[in-house]
Amino acid sequence: MAAGKFDILHLGHIAYLQQARECVGNDGRLVVVIALDSTIVKERGAPPVFPQEQRRRLVEALEMVDQAILGYETSDQTKIVRDVKPDIIALGYDQHADIEALQNMFEKEGINCEIVRLEKRDADGLCSSTLIRKRILDYYRENGTAR
Amino acid sequence: MAAGKFDILHLGHIAYLQQARECVGNDGRLVVVIALDSTIVKERGAPPVFPQEQRRRLVEALEMVDQAILGYETSDQTKIVRDVKPDIIALGYDQHADIEALQNMFEKEGINCEIVRLEKRDADGLCSSTLIRKRILDYYRENGTAR
Repeated sequence: MAAGKFDILHLGHIAYLQQARECVGNDGRLVVVIALDSTIVKERGAPPVFPQEQRRRLVEALEMVDQAILGYETSDQTKIVRDVKPDIIALGYDQHADIEALQNMFEKEGINCEIVRLEKRDADGLCSSTLIRKRILDYYRENGTAR
Repeated sequence: MAAGKFDILHLGHIAYLQQARECVGNDGRLVVVIALDSTIVKERGAPPVFPQEQRRRLVEALEMVDQAILGYETSDQTKIVRDVKPDIIALGYDQHADIEALQNMFEKEGINCEIVRLEKRDADGLCSSTLIRKRILDYYRENGTAR
């Protein structure tokens, strides 16, 4: 199981999901949880560029992904894990969850899964949605028109 | 063979490539030609948000695509067709090439391939890179900050 916002797909997302795929191998199943619009608004104070269902369908169209599902409207992270029943949860290098705390919480709830943090890979590109938005805005500021 | 700019992937791209996949079936091979940055600059006067190699790798990560290759630095469209040797060229509904003129040009060059224009499908979403950029800019204008 992997998770994220995936707003404006970029090579950093591909590198993350490719590593998650390598964790389970070709016969394994990779389920990706897509953050709800409401969760993103709570987290950064603004909605994503792409609404949640569009982000879900784009991620599900990637070759290394078996299924993409929307996150749940709850702060209880054990609920979705209980439903997906992953053997492994693969966190991206920039997902700053406390692995030990998560592991303890899951164990207390009788959930048995391994949590791994994937390394940062050189993805050779614009690997941050913030940078991508900045690139569009900088162009606008300099030229007075959207590119 | 399909072709396009594919700058900021959206569901319109997915709908187009899915239809192209349906043209060749599951056993067929779908090759996608990615417009060079220089071609995009010539066409709309501004570079894309994502450089060509990033656009190529993103498209190649889609499950319905077998291979994505960069376009050629030439106005002679027969060169790449001669190399890819497609049985079918699938144009998107918004690619305004003159099919008859293309077909005549290819026939004169001894290239035997069918050219089809795919229909517009309801892709339920933000299906234009221009609209996506506008959404980012509108937010900036209203709030004075990138979302």
